[in-house]
Amino acid sequence: MHEGIRTEIATLGEFGLIKHLTEGIQLQNPETKYGVGDDAAVLEFPDRQVLVTTDLLMEGVHFDLVYTPLKHLGYKSAMVNFSDIYAMNGRPKQMTVSIAVSKRFCIEDLDEFYDGLKLACQRHQVDLVGGDTTSSVTGLAISITCIGSADKEQVVYRNGAKPTDLICVSGDLGAAYMGLQLMEREKAVFQGETEVQPDFAGKEYLLERFLKPEARRDVVERLAKAGIRPTAMMDVSDGLSSELLHICSQSGTGCRVYEERIPIDYQTAVMAEEFNMNLSTCALNGGEDYELLFTVPLALREQVSQLEDVKVIGHMTAPDLGCALITRDGNELELKAQGWNPLKE
Amino acid sequence: MHEGIRTEIATLGEFGLIKHLTEGIQLQNPETKYGVGDDAAVLEFPDRQVLVTTDLLMEGVHFDLVYTPLKHLGYKSAMVNFSDIYAMNGRPKQMTVSIAVSKRFCIEDLDEFYDGLKLACQRHQVDLVGGDTTSSVTGLAISITCIGSADKEQVVYRNGAKPTDLICVSGDLGAAYMGLQLMEREKAVFQGETEVQPDFAGKEYLLERFLKPEARRDVVERLAKAGIRPTAMMDVSDGLSSELLHICSQSGTGCRVYEERIPIDYQTAVMAEEFNMNLSTCALNGGEDYELLFTVPLALREQVSQLEDVKVIGHMTAPDLGCALITRDGNELELKAQGWNPLKE
Repeated sequence: MHEGIRTEIATLGEFGLIKHLTEGIQLQNPETKYGVGDDAAVLEFPDRQVLVTTDLLMEGVHFDLVYTPLKHLGYKSAMVNFSDIYAMNGRPKQMTVSIAVSKRFCIEDLDEFYDGLKLACQRHQVDLVGGDTTSSVTGLAISITCIGSADKEQVVYRNGAKPTDLICVSGDLGAAYMGLQLMEREKAVFQGETEVQPDFAGKEYLLERFLKPEARRDVVERLAKAGIRPTAMMDVSDGLSSELLHICSQSGTGCRVYEERIPIDYQTAVMAEEFNMNLSTCALNGGEDYELLFTVPLALREQVSQLEDVKVIGHMTAPDLGCALITRDGNELELKAQGWNPLKE
Repeated sequence: MHEGIRTEIATLGEFGLIKHLTEGIQLQNPETKYGVGDDAAVLEFPDRQVLVTTDLLMEGVHFDLVYTPLKHLGYKSAMVNFSDIYAMNGRPKQMTVSIAVSKRFCIEDLDEFYDGLKLACQRHQVDLVGGDTTSSVTGLAISITCIGSADKEQVVYRNGAKPTDLICVSGDLGAAYMGLQLMEREKAVFQGETEVQPDFAGKEYLLERFLKPEARRDVVERLAKAGIRPTAMMDVSDGLSSELLHICSQSGTGCRVYEERIPIDYQTAVMAEEFNMNLSTCALNGGEDYELLFTVPLALREQVSQLEDVKVIGHMTAPDLGCALITRDGNELELKAQGWNPLKE
């Protein structure tokens, strides 16, 4: 929350607030005909398919304002939606943002949140075209809808993988989860002791992965440049295991993933050791990585192995072989979705 | 809330719940290529403009579950978004629905809410194509995004009205607001006395207008049939005064509205009398009417006056004449937006 000058939201009212938050926004895409200011935004996609994804983020469930700066929250809220559009092999183009805020928030807080949103939009050339600004009697609620586009022939679904296809993943996994664990530990340790500053030296990467994820436009662009159209693709938000099971179930395949090939950063490994946690479990089930998980035909092994920051971690199989992790010592473990589930007890 | 069988949401988990709520949904529009089940929905609008509108509804701010059945809430949540698309002279085509629920809700509750959503979708031929289902530590949050389409030349904005244009409104105004007042009164009177049933005889229209508004597709279709393209249009959600001021400010005009011409239902008038409220104030500032407010060139007076359920209530003027209500006794009162503002103290 903002420290320093504090301007109450009530001084602007709803329409004044919307104007304050959205003025100066320049539309960047020719597909955006009209943005904020009418009953609906007006877009145009004459020869493309239109992609729509949406997320609802609730305080106390999806984020903790004790350790999440509002600018980071805005940035991340936008990024996780862009990530869904890239996961369809599309490009994000427009975004609507609705927020419900209680009286403990001031205009300066919302400015910070919007600064994060706008930075994300700028980096990914996305137009903020509408939304809703209202009040909440309790916590902060954020709802974002992202609209993207893709060539008709280039849209990639979850259901197109074939047995023998290679399974690929970008970046590394488990770091955002370790960042979250680290934040939770520090929150518990320092509760009440405001003088003490936590020391995150050597763990910056984990915090960045958790607080400021980057949607992988670069990977989608590299795939396009290499002429590779994945047979199936998803972004890793709930955890690698969970996403792999979705692709297998929708494609009607099984899979084999090799533990030793799962990309993990050094800091993630150190932190798992420190927390006495199983490193592979963190990488398989941690979630919030926002990396791209995709499959390509076996014939493209050569091309895909040359892609920067992409690793082949296994292959699809016939469905009756099930979904399994091959451990370092050669054992087969059935893959289970232990990822984050907000509706489980 | 549901009485009778109660199945905990945790028994299904997030993916099970989404499957339960969305299975059996038939896509109705050729523009919908892929609905629920991937990272994003896939749509196609080759020769049309795409309209996007979104709303975030919070328990305790936008609705009170004490007197709002969940089926009605679902129906209304969808309708208010359809209404925004009609207000652009478009047709709603797809919708995403995100909800955040606390543990006091069971699956049967969500079924009722979705029954209302689905009924609204069926009546307006809208496809439910995606969303998000998550948990809340406090009240219910509902976020809906509606996507519509319109012919390029047919989109109507708020900014196209000219001085001398006629101001028209559909249906009647103030009834939903009186319905809300009635509900609030009964809630206060009967608090704690569960045996006593409130008597709503003779006030059914008010309750229906409040609990189950109907987006005015019929009016948009009648306009199209008559070959009338309004110069400006909005739906009446915050109140006639507030919406008129928006159109005038965006179009750069003033306006004159005649008190005696504002359409008001008999039940609204009786109820205002009973509550000792000024009837015109209710009709001007009540809000939640979801009627269409639009302007047409003076030359179309003949055509527009023949439209069923549409009334001419005044005309636009030069901007320096300001915005005023001409009262029954011929006085001029400056129009002020006293409509609902969730962010005012």
